[in-house]
Amino acid sequence: MEEKVLIFGHKNPDTDSICSSLVHEILDKKNGWDTKAVRLGNINKETQYVLDYLGIEAPELIEQVEEGQKVLLVDHNEFNQSVEGIQKAKILGVTDHHRIANFETAEPLYYNAKPYGCTSTILFEEFKRLGHEIEKKEAILMASSIISDTLLLKSPTTTEHDKKALEELGEIANIDIEKYGLEMLKAGTDLDDFSEEELINLDAKSLDKNGTKFVIAQVNTVSIEDVLKRQEKLEKAINSEIEKNGLSLFVLAITDILNSNSEVIALGSMANSVEKAFDKKLENNRVFLEGVVSRKKQLLPVIDKNI
Amino acid sequence: MEEKVLIFGHKNPDTDSICSSLVHEILDKKNGWDTKAVRLGNINKETQYVLDYLGIEAPELIEQVEEGQKVLLVDHNEFNQSVEGIQKAKILGVTDHHRIANFETAEPLYYNAKPYGCTSTILFEEFKRLGHEIEKKEAILMASSIISDTLLLKSPTTTEHDKKALEELGEIANIDIEKYGLEMLKAGTDLDDFSEEELINLDAKSLDKNGTKFVIAQVNTVSIEDVLKRQEKLEKAINSEIEKNGLSLFVLAITDILNSNSEVIALGSMANSVEKAFDKKLENNRVFLEGVVSRKKQLLPVIDKNI
Repeated sequence: MEEKVLIFGHKNPDTDSICSSLVHEILDKKNGWDTKAVRLGNINKETQYVLDYLGIEAPELIEQVEEGQKVLLVDHNEFNQSVEGIQKAKILGVTDHHRIANFETAEPLYYNAKPYGCTSTILFEEFKRLGHEIEKKEAILMASSIISDTLLLKSPTTTEHDKKALEELGEIANIDIEKYGLEMLKAGTDLDDFSEEELINLDAKSLDKNGTKFVIAQVNTVSIEDVLKRQEKLEKAINSEIEKNGLSLFVLAITDILNSNSEVIALGSMANSVEKAFDKKLENNRVFLEGVVSRKKQLLPVIDKNI
Repeated sequence: MEEKVLIFGHKNPDTDSICSSLVHEILDKKNGWDTKAVRLGNINKETQYVLDYLGIEAPELIEQVEEGQKVLLVDHNEFNQSVEGIQKAKILGVTDHHRIANFETAEPLYYNAKPYGCTSTILFEEFKRLGHEIEKKEAILMASSIISDTLLLKSPTTTEHDKKALEELGEIANIDIEKYGLEMLKAGTDLDDFSEEELINLDAKSLDKNGTKFVIAQVNTVSIEDVLKRQEKLEKAINSEIEKNGLSLFVLAITDILNSNSEVIALGSMANSVEKAFDKKLENNRVFLEGVVSRKKQLLPVIDKNI
């Protein structure tokens, strides 16, 4: 068993999950605690852009944790989004900005959740509360998380806290947030290298409502049309995922980060819950959702309600 | 529907649940938010001592909340310990020091949990963090919560944070904590007025492990012997509770607050889980547990593990 307390974000890690793990480790060091950031999956291209920019290595990949392993979760809490073995781990703390579900502990813990756009914004406030100076490296890590989760403050999940944090972090890092952010986001939209199987799992959230299993996946793009050229193959990959994991619904949101819209592909026996959620008919298994960019705020709650 | 955001602790409210609700309301007012403390059950004698000492009224009693009611939870999170209708309420925030279980939300929220001895210690730190002055009234409310939950800092749940908070609160309130605390605790041990049915429900926590329902109740006393004189009638009341609610186990801990021990009565089809938990045989449905005073730290985790 790893002796150090391990810090990690969710499976299919996004920029917030990776960067917030790294920032949490830095914050812990400042508090005198020797923790270790790890990750539960491959680094996506957007996050790789951030790591390359800073010239740092990705956290170590882990597949599972042993019974009794001490862990700190960031950017998630639901066990089905977490590491293999999480049920028997000792969860010391959680820093998160999602709803709480499919989560439980046997003992009291630290749980710091706020309904902000990004986990790093909560960590930013922890630096402030504890009176620790924010250095350039962690400023860029936190800024990258905020840019990623809020799509440069354009997502409806964005709060005043995120705006304030990003502004201050940009000043500390002395970078042009708009320019850096657009380059980072665009790096994440290069989907050509991915097979359809990989693409639908790049950023997929597994959910469970009273035993009904469903997935909401999302890919960011600068051209929805480009992604839709692969619709037939994407559907084949989705249907295979549905069969393999006994899913009732698989939603793939293809999100245009420049114009803030999404085209959604919905498959599975409960695909009609997407129709009910948005009061729109699926045509060719698809529906266009204007102004919808946030899974957490605009997709999950309404779909969940109709399942 | 009540327009104000309602704040409440758990069913069968103890001193921490009542006082932390009142303190949360005071803290909210200082932040400019007009919230309202309420309660989910009768005021016990210990808490009544505190209210009388301060000359204040108990919060209003509520039986249920309507769909969409905005609420803030203190000192609990498990839905089976919360208000009727909690599943459809809008939970904006939780301040708690218990494990997390049987809890979920549809949307992100504020969740501030710390593994401290008492909810009020977390609120004390919130006053500090936000830079609000603590006045005499809230100092006594928070001190009373800490004294109650930690049995005057003698329970193993006590942390350095609780000690530090209680010391500072005693200074602010300008009271002799030891003297005030003992009088308050003793006021709570006067059990004569209560029927056996009332007694086993005074401070009863309902739990649910994968559908197995069990209850761990606790009464504080200065004489275990006095309470055991009523064992026969207590068992009758417990068995009736087991039948009524389909429980697999009912544990009643009779805790000697002066000598820090507990005598435990265990009934139900899974009473042997208490024997397994402590590696001791029940005799006459009872077992004496030296040094055991904390349900949260010394009873719940070991019993839960053996269910």
